Amino acid sequence: MVVVMLPGATPEDVSHVVERVEAVGGEAFVSVGVDRTIIGLVGDIDSFHHLNLRAMRGVAAVYRISVPYKLVSRQHHPDRSTVWVGRPGRQVPIGPATFTFIAGPCAVESPDQTLEAATMARAAGATVLRGGAFKPRTSPYAFQGLGVRGLEILAAVGQSLGLPVVTEVVDPRDVEVVCEHADMLQVGSASMGNSGLLEAVGEAGKPVLLKRGMTATIEEWLMAAEYVAQRGNLEIVLCERGIRTFEPTTRNTLDVSAVPIAQIESHLPVVVDPSHASGRRDLVVPLSRAAIAAGADGLMVDVHPDPEVALCDGPQSLHGPELRALAQAVRQLPPMMGRKPAEPTTVTP
Amino acid sequence: MVVVMLPGATPEDVSHVVERVEAVGGEAFVSVGVDRTIIGLVGDIDSFHHLNLRAMRGVAAVYRISVPYKLVSRQHHPDRSTVWVGRPGRQVPIGPATFTFIAGPCAVESPDQTLEAATMARAAGATVLRGGAFKPRTSPYAFQGLGVRGLEILAAVGQSLGLPVVTEVVDPRDVEVVCEHADMLQVGSASMGNSGLLEAVGEAGKPVLLKRGMTATIEEWLMAAEYVAQRGNLEIVLCERGIRTFEPTTRNTLDVSAVPIAQIESHLPVVVDPSHASGRRDLVVPLSRAAIAAGADGLMVDVHPDPEVALCDGPQSLHGPELRALAQAVRQLPPMMGRKPAEPTTVTP
Amino acid sequence: MVVVMLPGATPEDVSHVVERVEAVGGEAFVSVGVDRTIIGLVGDIDSFHHLNLRAMRGVAAVYRISVPYKLVSRQHHPDRSTVWVGRPGRQVPIGPATFTFIAGPCAVESPDQTLEAATMARAAGATVLRGGAFKPRTSPYAFQGLGVRGLEILAAVGQSLGLPVVTEVVDPRDVEVVCEHADMLQVGSASMGNSGLLEAVGEAGKPVLLKRGMTATIEEWLMAAEYVAQRGNLEIVLCERGIRTFEPTTRNTLDVSAVPIAQIESHLPVVVDPSHASGRRDLVVPLSRAAIAAGADGLMVDVHPDPEVALCDGPQSLHGPELRALAQAVRQLPPMMGRKPAEPTTVTP
Amino acid sequence: MVVVMLPGATPEDVSHVVERVEAVGGEAFVSVGVDRTIIGLVGDIDSFHHLNLRAMRGVAAVYRISVPYKLVSRQHHPDRSTVWVGRPGRQVPIGPATFTFIAGPCAVESPDQTLEAATMARAAGATVLRGGAFKPRTSPYAFQGLGVRGLEILAAVGQSLGLPVVTEVVDPRDVEVVCEHADMLQVGSASMGNSGLLEAVGEAGKPVLLKRGMTATIEEWLMAAEYVAQRGNLEIVLCERGIRTFEPTTRNTLDVSAVPIAQIESHLPVVVDPSHASGRRDLVVPLSRAAIAAGADGLMVDVHPDPEVALCDGPQSLHGPELRALAQAVRQLPPMMGRKPAEPTTVTP
Repeated sequence: MVVVMLPGATPEDVSHVVERVEAVGGEAFVSVGVDRTIIGLVGDIDSFHHLNLRAMRGVAAVYRISVPYKLVSRQHHPDRSTVWVGRPGRQVPIGPATFTFIAGPCAVESPDQTLEAATMARAAGATVLRGGAFKPRTSPYAFQGLGVRGLEILAAVGQSLGLPVVTEVVDPRDVEVVCEHADMLQVGSASMGNSGLLEAVGEAGKPVLLKRGMTATIEEWLMAAEYVAQRGNLEIVLCERGIRTFEPTTRNTLDVSAVPIAQIESHLPVVVDPSHASGRRDLVVPLSRAAIAAGADGLMVDVHPDPEVALCDGPQSLHGPELRALAQAVRQLPPMMGRKPAEPTTVTP
Repeated sequence: MVVVMLPGATPEDVSHVVERVEAVGGEAFVSVGVDRTIIGLVGDIDSFHHLNLRAMRGVAAVYRISVPYKLVSRQHHPDRSTVWVGRPGRQVPIGPATFTFIAGPCAVESPDQTLEAATMARAAGATVLRGGAFKPRTSPYAFQGLGVRGLEILAAVGQSLGLPVVTEVVDPRDVEVVCEHADMLQVGSASMGNSGLLEAVGEAGKPVLLKRGMTATIEEWLMAAEYVAQRGNLEIVLCERGIRTFEPTTRNTLDVSAVPIAQIESHLPVVVDPSHASGRRDLVVPLSRAAIAAGADGLMVDVHPDPEVALCDGPQSLHGPELRALAQAVRQLPPMMGRKPAEPTTVTP
Repeated sequence: MVVVMLPGATPEDVSHVVERVEAVGGEAFVSVGVDRTIIGLVGDIDSFHHLNLRAMRGVAAVYRISVPYKLVSRQHHPDRSTVWVGRPGRQVPIGPATFTFIAGPCAVESPDQTLEAATMARAAGATVLRGGAFKPRTSPYAFQGLGVRGLEILAAVGQSLGLPVVTEVVDPRDVEVVCEHADMLQVGSASMGNSGLLEAVGEAGKPVLLKRGMTATIEEWLMAAEYVAQRGNLEIVLCERGIRTFEPTTRNTLDVSAVPIAQIESHLPVVVDPSHASGRRDLVVPLSRAAIAAGADGLMVDVHPDPEVALCDGPQSLHGPELRALAQAVRQLPPMMGRKPAEPTTVTP
Repeated sequence: MVVVMLPGATPEDVSHVVERVEAVGGEAFVSVGVDRTIIGLVGDIDSFHHLNLRAMRGVAAVYRISVPYKLVSRQHHPDRSTVWVGRPGRQVPIGPATFTFIAGPCAVESPDQTLEAATMARAAGATVLRGGAFKPRTSPYAFQGLGVRGLEILAAVGQSLGLPVVTEVVDPRDVEVVCEHADMLQVGSASMGNSGLLEAVGEAGKPVLLKRGMTATIEEWLMAAEYVAQRGNLEIVLCERGIRTFEPTTRNTLDVSAVPIAQIESHLPVVVDPSHASGRRDLVVPLSRAAIAAGADGLMVDVHPDPEVALCDGPQSLHGPELRALAQAVRQLPPMMGRKPAEPTTVTP
């Protein structure tokens, strides 16, 4: 940490800071400048944090110079991680050597619709099935999902097609029932800052797909992952899904830079959801290509057999020609990035 | 709703939209233009929503022209509401005729610190006490609050000084215990989109202070209030606390326009939290003045007897000269806006 | 400046930085930490800037700890400045002791409309007249202003009513002709980053009203003022007029915090334009009150005798009851802030 | 256009709108709903714009449903355009069939540095040379470019290596001299809203590279192109270079979605500048790959022989291994997108 003093700070103000730092076992290096004094702190950053240095007299600013996350940081864990999804003996990897295509309906609406969407997804190359049973909606009047019945449908369809399933959990009280039916727990964008939920999924013993909050910085996203990791679960996959900006032509702005940055800062795998990022079917294929080329470890895409009657997010769901174009991109581009398709396998590390 | 067709939409595409609207009992008025056709829809907006018109062939855009919230809207409830906080016989109003000053420590740290902060707050004119026992933090390594012990301290201090208390609830599982100790439940900025929590506080039978999410539009904020209202609780106070922008000198940017807009759109009272909006003690007084002058129904401010040792948000907590300046503003400005101080009263409607 | 080295930086990397700093006459204080080394630099910041330290091997980040503006900074000029507008013998102050109300039509459309608007403005208490002759518009198909003819109308109306006039200049080639007719040159929001224009108005010998770019940080705004000041002109008034955010109910979000911050950081006067900030007539009065209460040195507001037929920004132009309400606020609130109305005066410092 | 009336609008208010629309030759279709009336307008949108309908009594909102740009729109010009850069007999295309790699130093510093950077660029596959002589800087104390001397150096280097050159023009008064030395005029991000400059480059008879303003919507960007096109110049290449968001790890956020959207909305070619978007050398290669895969018609990248001593933007300039990685991506990926390298050619359409 670096403490920058105000131009008018007194030597006593400086001593006061130094004393407080030393009192918790830290070292303080004072650099006296013409206009200002700078104090460099060395030691345990967490103990400094509680000192509340920014509130001390004469202090202009405090810069943190190391990252606040530890377990998910790449600093002490230079090799990138692979997360395995599915039952023992039939697990799909998400990680640096492979490319994982996750697809399915935004919402589980019925057994037929789910089976049809899952069949389309598998035909296009998907090896993990997504589908929502608990839907967090902005409006209390919008379709909120089928709940437990949706979980049962999704699990049955996944099993019949041999695809592990990922589904969102919204409320910590639902973690248990979701775990009974799902192979991976999704924490949605709106829940990224819900620490109670993060802790609950961290304790659940299943891999977690953690979407970036639509207004979260990358650092805040990694801190949310740290909440999960702190409960002993490092089976976390990060998912970039667009951030809120002033541009109105897309629902959100896909932050494609977040893919390489998250991979530089963290050892966790990073996938991209171009469907929710853009909210527009005509952008899903170009954004998927961009994500693969930027180095994403996988994609998660909405498909629907009949988007016109979808109960949720029809305008962004793929089918027909766009889905064929996406299937082609998913076959062609990852090998150019040195990746092979993520197939279910019996051999896990 | 207005459906705008693409320039190349066919008459069949138009008929398809009209038929689907009529099938759910709506009316569709078709305006054929040179380049484009526009279809105006009349009827029940909720039934149209499920039609998923945006995903139909030939549709360029769908504009919603009425607001999606109902219970909290001012459209059918033109008089602005007053919310009463506290035990029967000693309730403090928050509404259009009064100005309510809520103050207290960001976090409850100990009985002494809470009593001292509450005493400062009351001396400055506050008639409602705030204080955090459950603290949602970005970092799992930061102080998370004293929990139930904090609630007990806060309730005891409030009772000893005759101040009703408001405190944040973060997890739906904690609503019950918080209700045992608090007079008003706060839903924090990070939880505004947590529908499970909104529903839980909506059923709890206590007034709710609903903070705007730092990246929520005003419409999304009112939709969150609608979630609470739907469970039968209209005792909701909205709290503007700054939005995320590109400007780095403040933690968030206080959106002072949100005060008159929320009051135009909704009948609910609106208060402002300048402490969390700015994160800077030196801005709390000018922003408080601005909020009062913009027509806010109240203020919520952090105070701390010794900000240097505060466990949470010390840099923004008031004490000494700033608190005296705020007390003066709270005495002088509201009467110019036609408001009287919100005192506890035995007469409630 | 503080240079933070990467965790893996070598002692040679550190030496390399130190040598380069010392080569330009600076001093470098090295603090060796457990994970990282920090180097505090003391000396001439401008010479360090050219060193391009951020591009050196082993460097993680470089923090600037002093402000990059000098002439407009309050650091070496603690007293707040007053700018005088108008001809010698009849000048209106804008500064810390007074409150200046600037009003007039968004665009000069005709002599009658301008006279009518100016008469309304003066009756409401305005002592400076605004009006646009050169209008920067997003669309080449929108009304671009009357140009020189507009300047002539504005100047004649200002003279007939005894009001100094402020008008926008968009192109450096127009500075000369605008100076012939105007008492103050406005640099609009869209031009704030136009360094050629800033330099031209800096050399023109007239006071400058510098609007904040709608996406400029406060620091960038002060750097734009520094461009003007560098050409020898410190007669600059800053004007906050809203920033671009995600909130759609207002054209821009008035950043009311920018008023006290700009006054803390700079000695220049700060006024607020609530009309362009919100784009909504129904918000102009509450936002004007908020601006006065936050400590603004003045207001600039659009008025129009018949907003329905205005060629520019009719929806935000005041008339009738709103203008009366504003006139009342401008009479009542500034005295509570210790300010008197800014009247033309023959005594200038 | 669609005019939405307020819930309380009277039949007279509606008639008033209809009459005004009809008075300028338009047609108005009235749809009377339960809560609200909607009026669909058919006719010349520009004449409606001047009616200032939003300011009329009873009007809640006005939605524009056709795009406000015409010459650059793809609606009446479905084939995507190719722009040719360079002298007759040796022109490089930028368009849908090819992929154009533009590279060079951010700023021209000296003949040697420019020659060295240009040689690196050409070796990596670039066929157009970029380099700045007039540099718009946030700070008046930063290096502002070599001006005309810089133009001469750039032109000489370009000629010696057989590369057409593109360089920024900042002031309309400099357009003439820049045209003498450059093959293509760049309008920078900070100048996108400078209508005087847009008009001047529109009249200059050279192709224009128009960067998106860092806070401009895609529609505003296309309106800026319309300003250029209105002066008779349709030789415009759009350049996405990142937008301002809340994310601090990159200088700006590359909006990769803007590539397909601009190509859907406009017939103009679209290139991407990943160097200025990110400000980070380590992101240039992944973002370049993403841009190619999203369908960009070209890339513009900063290179420097010795970034540590660059006078401008050294931290983002490529050299060594990153430049080799970029050269490889530029060879491999565009053919997968059905594009061939953009070589100088004597055959132009």
